Amino acid sequence: MKKDILEIIKEGIKSVDPLLCINRSVRLENDILIIKEKRYDLREFENVYIVGAGKASAKMAFAMESILGDKKFEGIVITKYKHLYKTRKIKVIEASHPIPDENGIRGTKKIIELLERAKENDLVIVLISGGGSSLLVLPKQGISLEEKKKTDKLLLECGADIEEVNTVRKHISQIKGGFLAKKAYPAEVVSLILSDVLGDPIDAIASGPTSPDPTTIRDAIRVLERYDLKEKVPKSIITSFKKGETPKPKDKIFKRVSNFVIGNNKMALESSRKKAEELGYNTLLLSSYIEGEAKEVGKVLASIAKEIYYSDHPLKKPAAVISGGETTVTIRGNGRGGRNQELVLSAAIQIRDLDICIASVGTDGTDGMTDAAGAIVDGNTIKIANKKGLEAREYLDNNDSYSFFKAIDSLVYTGPTNTNVNDIQVILVK
Amino acid sequence: MKKDILEIIKEGIKSVDPLLCINRSVRLENDILIIKEKRYDLREFENVYIVGAGKASAKMAFAMESILGDKKFEGIVITKYKHLYKTRKIKVIEASHPIPDENGIRGTKKIIELLERAKENDLVIVLISGGGSSLLVLPKQGISLEEKKKTDKLLLECGADIEEVNTVRKHISQIKGGFLAKKAYPAEVVSLILSDVLGDPIDAIASGPTSPDPTTIRDAIRVLERYDLKEKVPKSIITSFKKGETPKPKDKIFKRVSNFVIGNNKMALESSRKKAEELGYNTLLLSSYIEGEAKEVGKVLASIAKEIYYSDHPLKKPAAVISGGETTVTIRGNGRGGRNQELVLSAAIQIRDLDICIASVGTDGTDGMTDAAGAIVDGNTIKIANKKGLEAREYLDNNDSYSFFKAIDSLVYTGPTNTNVNDIQVILVK
Repeated sequence: MKKDILEIIKEGIKSVDPLLCINRSVRLENDILIIKEKRYDLREFENVYIVGAGKASAKMAFAMESILGDKKFEGIVITKYKHLYKTRKIKVIEASHPIPDENGIRGTKKIIELLERAKENDLVIVLISGGGSSLLVLPKQGISLEEKKKTDKLLLECGADIEEVNTVRKHISQIKGGFLAKKAYPAEVVSLILSDVLGDPIDAIASGPTSPDPTTIRDAIRVLERYDLKEKVPKSIITSFKKGETPKPKDKIFKRVSNFVIGNNKMALESSRKKAEELGYNTLLLSSYIEGEAKEVGKVLASIAKEIYYSDHPLKKPAAVISGGETTVTIRGNGRGGRNQELVLSAAIQIRDLDICIASVGTDGTDGMTDAAGAIVDGNTIKIANKKGLEAREYLDNNDSYSFFKAIDSLVYTGPTNTNVNDIQVILVK
Repeated sequence: MKKDILEIIKEGIKSVDPLLCINRSVRLENDILIIKEKRYDLREFENVYIVGAGKASAKMAFAMESILGDKKFEGIVITKYKHLYKTRKIKVIEASHPIPDENGIRGTKKIIELLERAKENDLVIVLISGGGSSLLVLPKQGISLEEKKKTDKLLLECGADIEEVNTVRKHISQIKGGFLAKKAYPAEVVSLILSDVLGDPIDAIASGPTSPDPTTIRDAIRVLERYDLKEKVPKSIITSFKKGETPKPKDKIFKRVSNFVIGNNKMALESSRKKAEELGYNTLLLSSYIEGEAKEVGKVLASIAKEIYYSDHPLKKPAAVISGGETTVTIRGNGRGGRNQELVLSAAIQIRDLDICIASVGTDGTDGMTDAAGAIVDGNTIKIANKKGLEAREYLDNNDSYSFFKAIDSLVYTGPTNTNVNDIQVILVK
């Protein structure tokens, strides 16, 4: 089953490769660039600019280059270190993720310079993918990178959810929350988005650089108040709020902006499901909205696996249940790991001795601050670990799933995949 | 949908009524008592004794009385306060649950007196249901009820799981962990079990009074060591370990013992599923093994509902997903609530504004230390609560789901149901 499960996951990741996603949604017919249902006659545009940011942006840029061929265009995208992909004309800048660095700022400034050259009869193609939020970074004037990082740290550690974090982030940025679209105005803007956020809300993916921002400065202040951060964040943050609102839905700039989601978790799950079917499993696509504390989600997935094992419900064996989404980990220990590894470690305890195999993998090829993409377990995992003197519960309590799986050789490695549509979980039961 | 969901849950609970469960598994043909596949010729037994304990024991006793009619038998069962059901001949004793009291001890002593009268040519019918562990209580000699309660409290608060807690409990008891069967020896013993433990392990339900105990004194000591309780528990606990082991699988007494599970969560779910089908829903029996932190399980169930809502996966709308099991609540606040109420409160936050309805109910009619059996939510719940100034997250953080649902009239009340097969969750999506 381990071989099958890895093949099923690989197929899922392959199906959301930026090259495939862009080729599915974009084509050039003579001089007409057709993006989903929309047609852009390149003869009507003087210049075509391509900008973007995210873990997939280099390969997205490569894909756009391939489609545009010898048409006239230029561009700059920012990607995470080690996520390079060779392009011909579009400049790829590497920067730090998840904690932003000066390279991100330099790259963002270059993108803004390019956008400011864009005129009414120009076309700006924006390539957005997960990770873009830390790569596309330019705090409002008066806020230093250190101050922005300190604010991020406070927000991430106070218990605020990602929506709340982003509400503040958007209001201290010159590029997030629709500001990229504003810089490009009055040019025509088309944004191609690879979604790493559940339900694909375009104002949330990479903090929505080309999306109207439904949140306000008052919302941002309320978040700071709720978590007692108003006195703790650097003063420049509060001052910057006076510099004005993010672009709102009724803003005229959005009349010239089209946002298209070209790849998401659901597409990956559907491809994984098909592969599992080909391999002879009865399949169920459970949900692409999975969220919650990773180790608790692991228990629930294990409980579904157990019902199949014992009673062929909700699926007859051999069965494959495919799910995806983004779980969270509340750090209580000081070990190493990621949400995927923690999820399956918890599941392993529940499926002990049963003919069940579970894997969870980050489609971007990384899980937490580790070099693995995830891990894979089955009914023998706990037995094998015990023989080596490893107590699963202790490793789980210490958030040290990486060390656990490293010792028993159950990590899944993919390397950077140049895509990013959250996580995939696969359960196989025989 | 609220009307439908309550009907679906009611049908599930009805199907595991002790009367129905016993009538499905037990019948009398002339003088032959047929229990599942086993036949007991009453002419060969001099006396028939009926004993038992649990939330369903009074109604189980009533059911056995109805079957035995005018045959000769006598008996005693212990049930929880307010869980009485009128019997003709079998004496029903009420005692405290979940914290044991002197009435439980008195009742248990009476049951033991009865069992000690049982001879080789007698038949002992044991009626076991959830809750039996605190009702059937007699600590080993030298341990007072207060000392036993103190030990229970330490075990329940140290973070040990229920298996670990029961490992210790069995080894300080005169009745749990197979000791009831030993007291009945050399009589023939048949145990009818209504399961409230996931997967129906007979050594765990009501701490397995008629089941061989797979755990040992060494295991019990190891649990105390693991949670640093060896010095904290009363000295009498440690001393009592020297009084000998619980009955083990090879013990000759079990040659005359048969254990039958006559009702469980799965049966209730299957009946709920059928009812949902009758009401026109596409149905899925997800799992009867659901466990994990209640509010996290609520998120996962909501994520499944959302996928159905947005994409008709894994089921086409109108859809009903039925699940069951036993979640846990880690107490962090000081409010009131139960695992079912906490589960759906967490789910409510996730399904805001969507045409989804979720309920979770304890089949015994109680949820935590409240008078409600559970609660019911839909896409409007959060809106209605906000209008009344209630912040769902605050109530969740304070483990105060009961006050939340009380204020918006969304509690589910059934009163004591005289049965107990854990919890049922139903998701409806339109």
